[in-house]
Amino acid sequence: MAPQYKFTYLDTRGLGEMCRYLFKYGGIDFEDVRIKRENWPQHKDKTPFGVVPILEYNGKVVGQSLAIARYLAKKVKLVGDNDWESLEIDATADTINDIRIKLIPIIMEQDTTKKQALLETLKKDTFGYYLPRLEAGAQKNNGYLVLGRLTWADFYFSTVSTMFDIVTGEDILGSYPNLKGVRDKVHALPAIKKWIEVRPKSDF
Amino acid sequence: MAPQYKFTYLDTRGLGEMCRYLFKYGGIDFEDVRIKRENWPQHKDKTPFGVVPILEYNGKVVGQSLAIARYLAKKVKLVGDNDWESLEIDATADTINDIRIKLIPIIMEQDTTKKQALLETLKKDTFGYYLPRLEAGAQKNNGYLVLGRLTWADFYFSTVSTMFDIVTGEDILGSYPNLKGVRDKVHALPAIKKWIEVRPKSDF
Repeated sequence: MAPQYKFTYLDTRGLGEMCRYLFKYGGIDFEDVRIKRENWPQHKDKTPFGVVPILEYNGKVVGQSLAIARYLAKKVKLVGDNDWESLEIDATADTINDIRIKLIPIIMEQDTTKKQALLETLKKDTFGYYLPRLEAGAQKNNGYLVLGRLTWADFYFSTVSTMFDIVTGEDILGSYPNLKGVRDKVHALPAIKKWIEVRPKSDF
Repeated sequence: MAPQYKFTYLDTRGLGEMCRYLFKYGGIDFEDVRIKRENWPQHKDKTPFGVVPILEYNGKVVGQSLAIARYLAKKVKLVGDNDWESLEIDATADTINDIRIKLIPIIMEQDTTKKQALLETLKKDTFGYYLPRLEAGAQKNNGYLVLGRLTWADFYFSTVSTMFDIVTGEDILGSYPNLKGVRDKVHALPAIKKWIEVRPKSDF
């Protein structure tokens, strides 16, 4: 039987990888559709709002990576046990997203000198502000970001913090042992470990 | 008895107003704490990640407007009846947020000529792309953004689309009758109508 879920993203990890982790973690079969960058223009107008990832299921299609991840996390039981717990996870994911958004102008910048200046600001003002606070949270939460246990916020952090290292060329979590532990624990989950070994290779 | 919920934001509507609407809609008592811009520096470090709004409840504190709104929407029954419906609402809210984010560089720009150029791009590329698609959705959904009924995505759209008009000085929804209808319906809800009459006045 063909998979019920069709998940479409670019042929990269990027914003799609967290959702792929959730499918793999829960053992949910899905069609992993990957659009090559050069073919994106002819796919763009087939999406609801011109962006990917999108999720198709039961004849319906919907976009937005965080919304899809939250949906999948419910299926694989990585959400809160009550509304307040879900709020804490959602807020953590949105905070990770606030950090992720700061990477975009740096990735887009072509001028080497300007890029270097942006990188310094990123490390000082963004990482220097957020990461000690997230680290203190992880220390209080049994080595997870929130609720003292594995949630989909940890999955999101694992993929976004990998981008930190790619964008800067540095081991950004090196001085944050608890945050590094969050990522290591996600990557050591058997289903994720196996997926990382077999997934298509891409630069980011 | 003092309200169980304490909601803190700046002394503006901005990102906080959707949450205030949800409290009012559901008749949930809350302390509406408003920080004046000039007092923000001494409040910033009392928040989890240096931003507002924040919600305090039962000795706990959490940030992120969309996460708080989703939590409140559960309390007042403006969420999905199942996981897929909630995904559709969440994706719609995130799409509205994608539009909102495009307003920020324009609000920040001080140079009149540059601001004008950014405004033209906003109207052509952002509003011109998203609004016809959202309008078609509202037409298919009984005059609501999604699911054919009132959800918290409509609340978010009402507050964000009001910012469209403030930033441009134009009636941006004028050529989108269904979207204008979404906003009008939210603002005509008795509890919201009453709140709009009595709420503290602010420019945005």
